Amino acid sequence: MRIARFTTGEGVTFGVVEGGPGEEFVAAVHGHPFGTVQFTGERRPLSEVRLVAPMLPSKVIAIGKNYADHAREMGAEPPAEPVVFSKPSTSVIGPGEAIVYPEKLSERVDFEGELAVVIGRLCRDVPVERTAEVIFGYTCANDVTARDLQKKDGQWTRAKGFDTFCPLGPWIQTDLDPADLAITTTVNGEIRQSARTSQLLHDIPALIAYVSAVMTLIPGDVILTGTPAGVGPLSVGDEVGVGIEGIGTLSNRVVSRD
Amino acid sequence: MRIARFTTGEGVTFGVVEGGPGEEFVAAVHGHPFGTVQFTGERRPLSEVRLVAPMLPSKVIAIGKNYADHAREMGAEPPAEPVVFSKPSTSVIGPGEAIVYPEKLSERVDFEGELAVVIGRLCRDVPVERTAEVIFGYTCANDVTARDLQKKDGQWTRAKGFDTFCPLGPWIQTDLDPADLAITTTVNGEIRQSARTSQLLHDIPALIAYVSAVMTLIPGDVILTGTPAGVGPLSVGDEVGVGIEGIGTLSNRVVSRD
Repeated sequence: MRIARFTTGEGVTFGVVEGGPGEEFVAAVHGHPFGTVQFTGERRPLSEVRLVAPMLPSKVIAIGKNYADHAREMGAEPPAEPVVFSKPSTSVIGPGEAIVYPEKLSERVDFEGELAVVIGRLCRDVPVERTAEVIFGYTCANDVTARDLQKKDGQWTRAKGFDTFCPLGPWIQTDLDPADLAITTTVNGEIRQSARTSQLLHDIPALIAYVSAVMTLIPGDVILTGTPAGVGPLSVGDEVGVGIEGIGTLSNRVVSRD
Repeated sequence: MRIARFTTGEGVTFGVVEGGPGEEFVAAVHGHPFGTVQFTGERRPLSEVRLVAPMLPSKVIAIGKNYADHAREMGAEPPAEPVVFSKPSTSVIGPGEAIVYPEKLSERVDFEGELAVVIGRLCRDVPVERTAEVIFGYTCANDVTARDLQKKDGQWTRAKGFDTFCPLGPWIQTDLDPADLAITTTVNGEIRQSARTSQLLHDIPALIAYVSAVMTLIPGDVILTGTPAGVGPLSVGDEVGVGIEGIGTLSNRVVSRD
Protein backbone atom coordinates (compact mmCIF):
# COMPACT_ATOMS: atom_id res chain seq x y z
CA MET A 1 0.00 0.00 0.00
CA ARG A 2 0.96 3.61 -0.56
CA ILE A 3 0.02 5.48 2.64
CA ALA A 4 -0.34 9.24 2.28
CA ARG A 5 -1.57 12.12 4.40
CA PHE A 6 -3.70 14.67 2.64
CA THR A 7 -5.86 17.71 3.12
CA THR A 8 -8.70 19.16 1.12
CA GLY A 9 -8.57 22.35 3.12
CA GLU A 10 -10.26 21.03 6.26
CA GLY A 11 -7.98 19.02 8.53
CA VAL A 12 -5.50 16.33 7.59
CA THR A 13 -6.41 12.67 6.94
CA PHE A 14 -4.44 9.52 6.27
CA GLY A 15 -5.34 7.74 3.05
CA VAL A 16 -4.32 4.94 0.72
CA VAL A 17 -3.25 5.93 -2.78
CA GLU A 18 -4.62 3.50 -5.38
CA GLY A 19 -4.77 3.30 -9.17
CA GLY A 20 -2.19 3.75 -11.90
CA PRO A 21 -0.31 6.84 -13.10
CA GLY A 22 -2.68 9.65 -14.03
CA GLU A 23 -5.68 7.79 -12.61
CA GLU A 24 -4.67 7.73 -8.96
CA PHE A 25 -7.15 8.37 -6.23
CA VAL A 26 -6.82 8.47 -2.47
CA ALA A 27 -9.10 6.44 -0.19
CA ALA A 28 -9.39 8.04 3.25
CA VAL A 29 -8.85 5.90 6.34
CA HIS A 30 -10.11 6.30 9.89
CA GLY A 31 -7.55 7.51 12.42
CA HIS A 32 -4.03 6.29 11.79
CA PRO A 33 -2.82 3.62 9.37
CA PHE A 34 -0.94 1.41 11.84
CA GLY A 35 -2.42 -2.05 12.28
CA THR A 36 -5.55 -2.77 10.25
CA VAL A 37 -6.53 0.06 7.91
CA GLN A 38 -10.22 0.99 8.06
CA PHE A 39 -11.54 2.94 5.10
CA THR A 40 -14.04 5.74 5.66
CA GLY A 41 -15.54 5.27 2.20
CA GLU A 42 -14.36 8.73 1.07
CA ARG A 43 -12.41 8.54 -2.22
CA ARG A 44 -10.98 11.48 -4.13
CA PRO A 45 -8.85 11.86 -7.23
CA LEU A 46 -5.23 12.43 -6.14
CA SER A 47 -5.17 15.57 -8.29
CA GLU A 48 -7.92 17.13 -6.16
CA VAL A 49 -6.19 16.80 -2.79
CA ARG A 50 -2.98 18.26 -1.41
CA LEU A 51 -0.51 15.76 0.00
CA VAL A 52 1.34 16.72 3.17
CA ALA A 53 4.19 14.89 4.94
CA PRO A 54 3.10 11.23 5.07
CA MET A 55 3.99 11.07 8.75
CA LEU A 56 4.58 13.47 11.63
CA PRO A 57 7.37 11.62 13.42
CA SER A 58 8.10 12.00 17.12
CA LYS A 59 11.72 11.86 16.04
CA VAL A 60 13.81 11.72 12.89
CA ILE A 61 17.04 9.79 13.30
CA ALA A 62 19.54 10.04 10.48
CA ILE A 63 22.74 8.26 9.51
CA GLY A 64 25.85 10.01 8.19
CA LYS A 65 28.40 8.72 5.69
CA ASN A 66 26.54 5.48 4.93
CA TYR A 67 27.61 5.25 1.26
CA ALA A 68 31.36 4.85 0.76
CA ASP A 69 31.54 7.26 -2.22
CA HIS A 70 29.76 9.97 -0.25
CA ALA A 71 32.02 9.50 2.78
CA ARG A 72 35.01 9.97 0.47
CA GLU A 73 33.58 13.05 -1.26
CA MET A 74 33.24 14.56 2.25
CA GLY A 75 36.93 13.83 2.82
CA ALA A 76 36.35 10.96 5.24
CA GLU A 77 36.85 7.23 5.23
CA PRO A 78 33.67 5.16 5.56
CA PRO A 79 33.02 4.80 9.30
CA ALA A 80 33.14 1.37 10.94
CA GLU A 81 29.92 2.07 12.84
CA PRO A 82 26.87 4.11 11.79
CA VAL A 83 27.14 7.85 12.50
CA VAL A 84 23.87 8.71 14.24
CA PHE A 85 22.38 12.19 14.36
CA SER A 86 18.86 13.61 14.50
CA LYS A 87 16.69 16.23 12.87
CA PRO A 88 13.93 17.98 14.85
CA SER A 89 10.33 17.10 14.02
CA THR A 90 9.81 20.77 13.18
CA SER A 91 12.06 20.34 10.13
CA VAL A 92 9.60 17.95 8.42
CA ILE A 93 7.65 19.12 5.36
CA GLY A 94 5.71 17.23 2.72
CA PRO A 95 5.88 16.81 -1.05
CA GLY A 96 5.44 20.07 -2.93
CA GLU A 97 6.11 22.20 0.14
CA ALA A 98 8.89 24.77 0.00
CA ILE A 99 12.42 24.35 1.35
CA VAL A 100 13.14 27.75 2.88
CA TYR A 101 16.71 28.98 2.33
CA PRO A 102 18.04 30.67 5.50
CA GLU A 103 20.15 33.26 3.71
CA LYS A 104 20.99 35.19 6.86
CA LEU A 105 22.70 32.18 8.44
CA SER A 106 23.99 30.05 5.57
CA GLU A 107 25.56 30.54 2.16
CA ARG A 108 25.67 26.88 1.22
CA VAL A 109 22.58 24.66 1.49
CA ASP A 110 22.89 21.15 0.00
CA PHE A 111 20.40 18.49 -1.05
CA GLU A 112 20.93 14.92 0.20
CA GLY A 113 18.54 12.37 -1.30
CA GLU A 114 17.88 9.40 0.97
CA LEU A 115 15.75 6.33 1.51
CA ALA A 116 13.76 6.72 4.73
CA VAL A 117 12.39 3.92 6.87
CA VAL A 118 9.16 4.53 8.80
CA ILE A 119 8.76 2.59 12.04
CA GLY A 120 5.43 0.86 12.67
CA ARG A 121 5.74 -0.53 16.20
CA LEU A 122 6.94 0.66 19.56
CA CYS A 123 10.24 -1.14 19.91
CA ARG A 124 13.55 -1.27 21.74
CA ASP A 125 16.59 -3.55 21.33
CA VAL A 126 15.34 -5.06 18.09
CA PRO A 127 17.55 -7.98 16.98
CA VAL A 128 18.79 -7.68 13.38
CA GLU A 129 16.77 -10.72 12.33
CA ARG A 130 13.51 -9.26 13.65
CA THR A 131 13.76 -5.71 12.30
CA ALA A 132 11.25 -6.44 9.50
CA GLU A 133 8.55 -6.72 12.17
CA VAL A 134 8.94 -3.09 13.25
CA ILE A 135 9.06 -1.50 9.78
CA PHE A 136 5.89 0.19 8.58
CA GLY A 137 7.23 1.20 5.17
CA TYR A 138 9.58 3.37 3.15
CA THR A 139 9.51 6.87 1.77
CA CYS A 140 11.82 9.36 0.05
CA ALA A 141 13.64 11.96 2.13
CA ASN A 142 15.86 14.95 1.55
CA ASP A 143 18.33 15.53 4.39
CA VAL A 144 18.77 19.21 3.55
CA THR A 145 21.98 20.50 5.14
CA ALA A 146 23.55 23.93 5.62
CA ARG A 147 27.01 22.65 4.70
CA ASP A 148 28.87 25.71 5.94
CA LEU A 149 27.26 25.48 9.37
CA GLN A 150 27.84 21.73 9.50
CA LYS A 151 31.57 22.30 9.07
CA LYS A 152 31.69 25.24 11.46
CA ASP A 153 29.55 23.83 14.28
CA GLY A 154 30.96 20.32 14.71
CA GLN A 155 27.61 19.11 15.99
CA TRP A 156 25.17 18.89 13.04
CA THR A 157 21.96 19.74 14.88
CA ARG A 158 21.77 23.33 13.69
CA ALA A 159 22.98 22.73 10.11
CA LYS A 160 20.42 19.99 9.57
CA GLY A 161 17.70 21.28 11.86
CA PHE A 162 16.23 24.30 10.11
CA ASP A 163 12.46 24.36 9.58
CA THR A 164 11.70 22.75 6.16
CA PHE A 165 15.05 20.87 6.02
CA CYS A 166 13.43 17.42 6.14
CA PRO A 167 11.11 16.88 3.17
CA LEU A 168 9.42 13.46 3.33
CA GLY A 169 7.11 11.79 0.80
CA PRO A 170 5.26 11.61 -1.44
CA TRP A 171 3.82 8.64 0.48
CA ILE A 172 4.93 5.59 2.46
CA GLN A 173 5.22 2.40 0.44
CA THR A 174 4.50 -0.52 2.77
CA ASP A 175 5.15 -3.33 0.25
CA LEU A 176 8.74 -3.06 -0.82
CA ASP A 177 12.03 -4.89 -0.57
CA PRO A 178 14.52 -2.07 0.13
CA ALA A 179 17.66 -4.12 -0.48
CA ASP A 180 18.51 -2.93 -4.01
CA LEU A 181 16.51 0.07 -5.20
CA ALA A 182 17.63 2.80 -7.58
CA ILE A 183 17.80 6.20 -5.86
CA THR A 184 18.13 9.37 -7.92
CA THR A 185 18.28 13.03 -6.97
CA THR A 186 17.62 15.69 -9.60
CA VAL A 187 17.91 19.45 -9.50
CA ASN A 188 15.79 21.20 -12.13
CA GLY A 189 15.55 17.87 -13.93
CA GLU A 190 19.31 17.20 -14.05
CA ILE A 191 20.52 14.05 -12.34
CA ARG A 192 22.89 14.85 -9.46
CA GLN A 193 22.85 11.66 -7.40
CA SER A 194 22.34 8.18 -8.79
CA ALA A 195 22.99 5.06 -6.73
CA ARG A 196 21.43 1.87 -5.47
CA THR A 197 20.43 1.11 -1.90
CA SER A 198 22.52 -2.08 -2.14
CA GLN A 199 25.50 0.26 -1.70
CA LEU A 200 24.46 1.17 1.86
CA LEU A 201 27.41 0.41 4.15
CA HIS A 202 25.13 -0.40 7.08
CA ASP A 203 21.89 -1.88 5.80
CA ILE A 204 18.43 -1.23 7.20
CA PRO A 205 18.30 -4.17 9.62
CA ALA A 206 21.70 -3.15 11.00
CA LEU A 207 20.59 0.48 11.41
CA ILE A 208 17.36 -0.39 13.22
CA ALA A 209 19.20 -2.74 15.57
CA TYR A 210 21.91 -0.13 16.20
CA VAL A 211 19.54 2.77 16.90
CA SER A 212 17.01 0.75 18.90
CA ALA A 213 19.80 -0.49 21.19
CA VAL A 214 20.00 3.13 22.37
CA MET A 215 16.51 4.56 22.15
CA THR A 216 12.92 3.41 21.99
CA LEU A 217 11.38 3.87 18.56
CA ILE A 218 7.73 4.92 18.31
CA PRO A 219 5.25 4.29 15.47
CA GLY A 220 5.84 6.99 12.88
CA ASP A 221 9.47 7.59 13.80
CA VAL A 222 11.68 7.92 10.76
CA ILE A 223 15.24 6.75 10.10
CA LEU A 224 17.04 8.39 7.18
CA THR A 225 19.55 5.85 5.87
CA GLY A 226 22.21 8.17 4.46
CA THR A 227 22.92 9.86 1.15
CA PRO A 228 25.00 8.61 -1.80
CA ALA A 229 27.74 10.58 -3.58
CA GLY A 230 26.88 13.67 -5.60
CA VAL A 231 25.60 16.08 -2.96
CA GLY A 232 25.66 19.68 -4.05
CA PRO A 233 24.24 23.13 -3.47
CA LEU A 234 20.71 24.38 -3.93
CA SER A 235 19.73 27.88 -4.99
CA VAL A 236 16.51 29.78 -4.50
CA GLY A 237 14.16 28.79 -7.30
CA ASP A 238 15.58 25.28 -7.73
CA GLU A 239 13.25 22.28 -7.88
CA VAL A 240 14.84 19.26 -6.20
CA GLY A 241 13.49 15.75 -6.67
CA VAL A 242 14.35 12.56 -4.79
CA GLY A 243 13.12 9.51 -6.65
CA ILE A 244 13.28 5.94 -5.36
CA GLU A 245 12.35 2.87 -7.39
CA GLY A 246 9.09 1.38 -6.16
CA ILE A 247 8.13 4.45 -4.12
CA GLY A 248 7.88 7.57 -6.29
CA THR A 249 9.39 11.04 -6.37
CA LEU A 250 9.51 13.68 -3.65
CA SER A 251 9.73 17.16 -5.20
CA ASN A 252 10.31 20.45 -3.43
CA ARG A 253 11.08 23.95 -4.58
CA VAL A 254 13.60 26.19 -2.80
CA VAL A 255 12.34 29.62 -1.75
CA SER A 256 13.94 32.59 -0.06
CA ARG A 257 13.26 33.40 3.58
CA ASP A 258 13.40 37.11 2.88
CA MET B 1 3.59 28.65 40.24
CA ARG B 2 5.15 25.21 40.46
CA ILE B 3 3.65 23.16 37.61
CA ALA B 4 3.96 19.39 37.96
CA ARG B 5 2.60 16.32 36.21
CA PHE B 6 1.44 13.52 38.44
CA THR B 7 -0.31 10.21 38.51
CA THR B 8 -2.26 8.41 41.17
CA GLY B 9 -2.23 5.23 39.11
CA GLU B 10 -4.88 6.23 36.58
CA GLY B 11 -3.63 8.51 33.82
CA VAL B 12 -1.41 11.55 34.12
CA THR B 13 -2.60 15.04 35.07
CA PHE B 14 -0.99 18.46 35.25
CA GLY B 15 -1.22 20.12 38.62
CA VAL B 16 -0.02 23.10 40.63
CA VAL B 17 2.10 22.36 43.70
CA GLU B 18 1.17 24.61 46.62
CA GLY B 19 2.07 24.85 50.27
CA GLY B 20 5.32 24.85 52.19
CA PRO B 21 7.88 22.08 52.78
CA GLY B 22 6.27 18.98 54.28
CA GLU B 23 2.78 20.37 53.77
CA GLU B 24 2.71 20.50 49.99
CA PHE B 25 -0.32 19.45 48.02
CA VAL B 26 -1.00 19.33 44.33
CA ALA B 27 -4.09 20.96 42.80
CA ALA B 28 -5.09 19.27 39.52
CA VAL B 29 -5.72 21.41 36.44
CA HIS B 30 -7.83 20.76 33.37
CA GLY B 31 -5.91 19.84 30.21
CA HIS B 32 -2.58 21.60 29.88
CA PRO B 33 -1.16 24.46 31.93
CA PHE B 34 -0.34 26.87 29.08
CA GLY B 35 -2.34 30.08 29.15
CA THR B 36 -4.88 30.37 31.97
CA VAL B 37 -4.77 27.48 34.43
CA GLN B 38 -8.19 26.03 35.27
CA PHE B 39 -8.37 23.99 38.45
CA THR B 40 -10.49 20.83 38.54
CA GLY B 41 -11.02 21.16 42.28
CA GLU B 42 -9.11 17.92 42.99
CA ARG B 43 -6.40 18.43 45.60
CA ARG B 44 -4.11 15.78 47.00
CA PRO B 45 -1.14 15.78 49.39
CA LEU B 46 2.05 15.70 47.34
CA SER B 47 3.15 12.66 49.35
CA GLU B 48 0.20 10.67 48.00
CA VAL B 49 0.86 11.18 44.29
CA ARG B 50 3.75 10.16 42.06
CA LEU B 51 5.35 12.97 40.08
CA VAL B 52 6.38 12.21 36.49
CA ALA B 53 8.35 14.40 34.06
CA PRO B 54 6.75 17.86 34.31
CA MET B 55 6.57 18.09 30.52
CA LEU B 56 6.67 15.72 27.55
CA PRO B 57 8.57 17.91 25.10
CA SER B 58 8.31 17.57 21.33
CA LYS B 59 12.02 18.25 21.39
CA VAL B 60 14.86 18.75 23.85
CA ILE B 61 17.54 21.11 22.60
CA ALA B 62 20.72 21.29 24.63
CA ILE B 63 23.78 23.51 24.73
CA GLY B 64 27.33 22.25 25.09
CA LYS B 65 30.28 23.94 26.83
CA ASN B 66 28.26 26.86 28.12
CA TYR B 67 30.23 27.33 31.36
CA ALA B 68 33.89 28.27 30.83
CA ASP B 69 35.22 26.00 33.59
CA HIS B 70 33.37 23.00 32.14
CA ALA B 71 34.62 23.71 28.60
CA ARG B 72 38.15 23.73 30.00
CA GLU B 73 37.72 20.51 32.00
CA MET B 74 36.64 18.90 28.69
CA GLY B 75 39.89 20.14 27.13
CA ALA B 76 38.26 22.85 25.03
CA GLU B 77 38.21 26.61 24.95
CA PRO B 78 34.80 28.20 25.57
CA PRO B 79 33.11 28.39 22.15
CA ALA B 80 32.30 31.76 20.60
CA GLU B 81 28.82 30.59 19.66
CA PRO B 82 26.49 28.16 21.47
CA VAL B 83 27.08 24.48 20.64
CA VAL B 84 23.61 23.12 19.85
CA PHE B 85 22.65 19.46 20.07
CA SER B 86 19.48 17.56 20.88
CA LYS B 87 18.23 14.69 22.99
CA PRO B 88 15.31 12.53 21.81
CA SER B 89 11.98 12.90 23.60
CA THR B 90 12.25 9.20 24.48
CA SER B 91 15.17 10.03 26.79
CA VAL B 92 12.96 12.07 29.17
CA ILE B 93 12.11 10.71 32.62
CA GLY B 94 10.72 12.35 35.72
CA PRO B 95 11.87 12.87 39.32
CA GLY B 96 12.41 9.62 41.18
CA GLU B 97 12.52 7.54 38.01
CA ALA B 98 15.56 5.39 37.33
CA ILE B 99 18.49 6.28 35.07
CA VAL B 100 19.23 2.99 33.34
CA TYR B 101 22.95 2.30 32.86
CA PRO B 102 23.58 0.74 29.41
CA GLU B 103 26.46 -1.49 30.51
CA LYS B 104 26.68 -3.34 27.21
CA LEU B 105 27.44 -0.15 25.27
CA SER B 106 29.15 2.21 27.72
CA GLU B 107 31.64 2.01 30.55
CA ARG B 108 31.45 5.67 31.50
CA VAL B 109 28.15 7.42 32.13
CA ASP B 110 28.36 10.95 33.54
CA PHE B 111 25.92 13.27 35.28
CA GLU B 112 25.56 16.84 34.02
CA GLY B 113 23.33 19.04 36.17
CA GLU B 114 21.66 21.86 34.23
CA LEU B 115 19.06 24.58 34.36
CA ALA B 116 16.33 23.84 31.79
CA VAL B 117 14.03 26.38 30.16
CA VAL B 118 10.53 25.28 29.19
CA ILE B 119 8.99 27.07 26.23
CA GLY B 120 5.41 28.29 26.57
CA ARG B 121 4.52 29.65 23.13
CA LEU B 122 4.90 28.57 19.53
CA CYS B 123 7.71 30.81 18.33
CA ARG B 124 10.32 31.37 15.67
CA ASP B 125 13.00 34.07 15.27
CA VAL B 126 12.49 35.45 18.76
CA PRO B 127 14.50 38.67 19.29
CA VAL B 128 16.69 38.64 22.41
CA GLU B 129 14.64 41.40 24.01
CA ARG B 130 11.37 39.46 23.62
CA THR B 131 12.48 36.00 24.78
CA ALA B 132 10.78 36.42 28.17
CA GLU B 133 7.43 36.26 26.33
CA VAL B 134 8.01 32.70 25.13
CA ILE B 135 9.31 31.22 28.41
CA PHE B 136 6.87 29.11 30.39
CA GLY B 137 9.22 28.39 33.27
CA TYR B 138 12.30 26.60 34.55
CA THR B 139 13.13 23.16 35.82
CA CYS B 140 16.14 21.06 36.77
CA ALA B 141 17.68 18.70 34.23
CA ASN B 142 20.37 16.08 34.12
CA ASP B 143 22.02 15.79 30.70
CA VAL B 144 23.19 12.22 31.32
CA THR B 145 25.99 11.36 28.90
CA ALA B 146 27.84 8.19 27.91
CA ARG B 147 31.20 9.96 27.88
CA ASP B 148 33.06 7.17 26.10
CA LEU B 149 30.54 7.11 23.25
CA GLN B 150 30.53 10.90 23.06
CA LYS B 151 34.29 10.87 22.44
CA LYS B 152 34.16 7.94 20.03
CA ASP B 153 31.15 8.98 17.93
CA GLY B 154 31.88 12.63 17.19
CA GLN B 155 28.15 13.31 16.93
CA TRP B 156 26.62 13.27 20.42
CA THR B 157 23.18 11.92 19.53
CA ARG B 158 23.83 8.37 20.66
CA ALA B 159 25.89 9.21 23.76
CA LYS B 160 23.22 11.58 25.07
CA GLY B 161 20.19 9.86 23.57
CA PHE B 162 19.68 6.70 25.61
CA ASP B 163 16.28 6.12 27.14
CA THR B 164 16.25 7.67 30.67
CA PHE B 165 19.21 10.00 29.92
CA CYS B 166 17.15 13.19 30.33
CA PRO B 167 15.69 13.45 33.83
CA LEU B 168 13.54 16.60 34.22
CA GLY B 169 11.81 17.96 37.30
CA PRO B 170 10.64 17.92 39.95
CA TRP B 171 8.33 20.63 38.56
CA ILE B 172 8.39 23.76 36.42
CA GLN B 173 8.79 27.01 38.34
CA THR B 174 7.05 29.74 36.37
CA ASP B 175 7.96 32.66 38.65
CA LEU B 176 11.71 32.93 38.72
CA ASP B 177 14.51 35.22 37.62
CA PRO B 178 17.06 32.75 36.21
CA ALA B 179 19.93 35.23 35.96
CA ASP B 180 21.87 34.26 39.09
CA LEU B 181 20.73 31.02 40.73
CA ALA B 182 22.84 28.53 42.65
CA ILE B 183 23.00 25.16 40.88
CA THR B 184 24.33 22.11 42.70
CA THR B 185 24.72 18.49 41.69
CA THR B 186 25.20 15.82 44.33
CA VAL B 187 25.98 12.12 44.10
CA ASN B 188 24.94 10.14 47.17
CA GLY B 189 24.75 13.44 49.02
CA GLU B 190 28.26 14.63 48.12
CA ILE B 191 28.50 17.90 46.21
CA ARG B 192 30.08 17.40 42.77
CA GLN B 193 29.01 20.49 40.86
CA SER B 194 28.41 23.90 42.39
CA ALA B 195 28.01 27.01 40.31
CA ARG B 196 25.73 29.94 39.60
CA THR B 197 23.69 30.48 36.45
CA SER B 198 25.28 33.93 36.17
CA GLN B 199 28.33 32.03 34.89
CA LEU B 200 26.51 30.92 31.72
CA LEU B 201 28.58 32.05 28.73
CA HIS B 202 25.49 32.46 26.56
CA ASP B 203 22.55 33.50 28.70
CA ILE B 204 18.97 32.32 28.31
CA PRO B 205 17.76 35.17 26.07
CA ALA B 206 20.77 34.62 23.78
CA LEU B 207 20.11 30.87 23.63
CA ILE B 208 16.42 31.23 22.79
CA ALA B 209 17.18 33.76 20.07
CA TYR B 210 19.95 31.56 18.66
CA VAL B 211 17.93 28.34 18.60
CA SER B 212 14.69 29.92 17.41
CA ALA B 213 16.51 31.50 14.46
CA VAL B 214 16.90 27.94 13.20
CA MET B 215 13.86 26.03 14.34
CA THR B 216 10.32 26.67 15.50
CA LEU B 217 9.86 26.06 19.23
CA ILE B 218 6.61 24.50 20.43
CA PRO B 219 4.95 24.83 23.86
CA GLY B 220 6.60 22.28 26.13
CA ASP B 221 9.90 22.19 24.24
CA VAL B 222 12.87 22.25 26.56
CA ILE B 223 16.26 23.93 26.25
CA LEU B 224 19.02 22.61 28.54
CA THR B 225 21.39 25.49 29.14
CA GLY B 226 24.64 23.61 29.73
CA THR B 227 26.47 22.11 32.67
CA PRO B 228 29.08 23.70 34.95
CA ALA B 229 32.45 22.18 35.87
CA GLY B 230 32.63 19.06 37.97
CA VAL B 231 31.03 16.43 35.76
CA GLY B 232 31.89 12.89 36.69
CA PRO B 233 30.89 9.27 36.48
CA LEU B 234 27.84 7.54 37.86
CA SER B 235 27.70 3.95 39.08
CA VAL B 236 24.77 1.61 39.45
CA GLY B 237 23.15 2.31 42.82
CA ASP B 238 24.12 5.99 42.92
CA GLU B 239 21.53 8.62 43.75
CA VAL B 240 22.15 11.82 41.76
CA GLY B 241 20.49 15.11 42.65
CA VAL B 242 20.35 18.35 40.68
CA GLY B 243 19.23 21.24 42.85
CA ILE B 244 18.54 24.76 41.64
CA GLU B 245 17.78 27.70 43.89
CA GLY B 246 14.12 28.68 43.65
CA ILE B 247 13.09 25.47 41.89
CA GLY B 248 13.89 22.40 43.98
CA THR B 249 15.85 19.18 43.59
CA LEU B 250 15.59 16.53 40.89
CA SER B 251 16.72 13.15 42.25
CA ASN B 252 17.24 9.93 40.33
CA ARG B 253 18.78 6.60 41.15
CA VAL B 254 21.00 4.72 38.71
CA VAL B 255 20.01 1.12 37.98
CA SER B 256 21.49 -1.63 35.86
CA ARG B 257 19.96 -2.61 32.53
CA ASP B 258 20.83 -6.22 33.08
